[in-house]
Amino acid sequence: MSFDVQILGSNSAMAAHNRHPSSQCIFIHHHVFLVDCGEGTQFQLQKYKLKFFRIDNIFISHLHGDHYFGLIGLLTTYQLLRRETKITIFGPPQLESIIRLQLEVSDSKLTYPLEFVSTQTDETSIIFEDDDVEVVSFPVKHRIPCTGFLFKEKVFPRKVNADAVKDLKLSSEQYYALRKGEDIRISKDIYFSNQQLTLPNLPPRTYAYCTDTLFLPSIVPIIQYADLLYHESTFLNESAARAKETFHSTAYQAAQIAKDAEVKHLIIGHFSSKYQDLSPLLREAQDTFEDTSLAIEGMIYSIPKQKN
Amino acid sequence: MSFDVQILGSNSAMAAHNRHPSSQCIFIHHHVFLVDCGEGTQFQLQKYKLKFFRIDNIFISHLHGDHYFGLIGLLTTYQLLRRETKITIFGPPQLESIIRLQLEVSDSKLTYPLEFVSTQTDETSIIFEDDDVEVVSFPVKHRIPCTGFLFKEKVFPRKVNADAVKDLKLSSEQYYALRKGEDIRISKDIYFSNQQLTLPNLPPRTYAYCTDTLFLPSIVPIIQYADLLYHESTFLNESAARAKETFHSTAYQAAQIAKDAEVKHLIIGHFSSKYQDLSPLLREAQDTFEDTSLAIEGMIYSIPKQKN
Repeated sequence: MSFDVQILGSNSAMAAHNRHPSSQCIFIHHHVFLVDCGEGTQFQLQKYKLKFFRIDNIFISHLHGDHYFGLIGLLTTYQLLRRETKITIFGPPQLESIIRLQLEVSDSKLTYPLEFVSTQTDETSIIFEDDDVEVVSFPVKHRIPCTGFLFKEKVFPRKVNADAVKDLKLSSEQYYALRKGEDIRISKDIYFSNQQLTLPNLPPRTYAYCTDTLFLPSIVPIIQYADLLYHESTFLNESAARAKETFHSTAYQAAQIAKDAEVKHLIIGHFSSKYQDLSPLLREAQDTFEDTSLAIEGMIYSIPKQKN
Repeated sequence: MSFDVQILGSNSAMAAHNRHPSSQCIFIHHHVFLVDCGEGTQFQLQKYKLKFFRIDNIFISHLHGDHYFGLIGLLTTYQLLRRETKITIFGPPQLESIIRLQLEVSDSKLTYPLEFVSTQTDETSIIFEDDDVEVVSFPVKHRIPCTGFLFKEKVFPRKVNADAVKDLKLSSEQYYALRKGEDIRISKDIYFSNQQLTLPNLPPRTYAYCTDTLFLPSIVPIIQYADLLYHESTFLNESAARAKETFHSTAYQAAQIAKDAEVKHLIIGHFSSKYQDLSPLLREAQDTFEDTSLAIEGMIYSIPKQKN
């Protein structure tokens, strides 16, 4: 079961040096989630040959244009291609009026249901949940209301221990009960707790997306032990004052968050256009947190299945 | 004095086959006009290394996304780069509220003045005029209100005829008066009309931009004798019924308009994504109007100076 993150764009503010504004696809099991949708995201989806009709849920962190100006184009393209399945958009409350206004003036009757779910910027909340995945939004601190997103695989059910059950001649109903986590009674006198006949399954994986934000240590408990953290690092630490003034973070600060949260791997992105060469940002982050990569367009980072 | 048209995008509806939605730059003397601004136009301006700070006037034909979704991104980029000179946008009245709403939610205080001028879709009107150029908007017939634009070089003043004046020993004031089109009096008895001492200058050039529209012969008198006509040809004529249903034109119809209007050259564009190979569209247009080109991204069409 996959848990992959593909970078579609990771430049801040505007396109430069052939880098596009923020967007990424998160593949978790059968889901394809789109996170942020800067201008040109639909071109990037085409370029990397992503099956973009599989996107049903789109998460927008905030309403600076480099994070959502591509959304209306993507939604319009779905309309032109006669999409029928629902799209749900999670984002700041004003996003709905912007999109509805643009659909209205173009006299577009959508062929698919479009639902908006407003994110909260004053508290952490579960905004999406099904049998496989839970998505949590959490406030970060930017010039305008902004949230991060935490994508969490649900805890897998325990696996039946083949060795433990091999002589018990279980019925299919008993097998099913075990897999559901129930205890089972073999006869009047023989009883097994679920734990006796099952083994722990793989631990669930988590991915945290944090952009755009000031250096914000209060997010550490929320993203703690994440298998993967994407954290904005718009500037080098020599521009820490500029980062603070614009409500952004530096590569050093992103790495410090990763270290404090004890995440397994860090991807840094949302690079200022002033940096054509990104290697100084990478080196700065790696000095504090070694397991760091640059968010390069097209790159896929697969979170491996974890061992118990 | 240049009069060039550079194609930045000419696909209809959405990006496909590496073709971008509608946008083009018109270079007339010192002016750089942007006409339509589909998603990704700012990337195309970068790609073709256009000095996009020289754009002061932007013309939007209508509010289907493939003609304006790139506008907010371009305006935001100007803001990020601390532009100070004014931008004027000519387009449908609702455009202003869409742009202002997006600027408001991002808490953007523009560093430059931004003015909107509403286009009329019930009559032909002069929407821009200075010493060099006049721009006329004219209604076309699409699913929502839409205008074409006619870019006209102003009539050049007549040139002083060096042979006619060589023995007259004109003062610099008299020379200047002649160039302004005035008649002059050399003495009490000697008088010359302006026409006697000047020659006709180069004839002014015109470019007509017609997208998106049904086949609309009523535009012929407006665009008559244009040096260059860009006319949408979304479909081949075998899809004439589909063109009519979607308020678009076919390559044959674009060529028929060019022929009836006796323009000098035709560029066809706004191609449906169903055509990967555009040569059948070109051949169809050329069967009716030979001097036809395809609107290929990056292509510059220079309107040569006309002979008298």
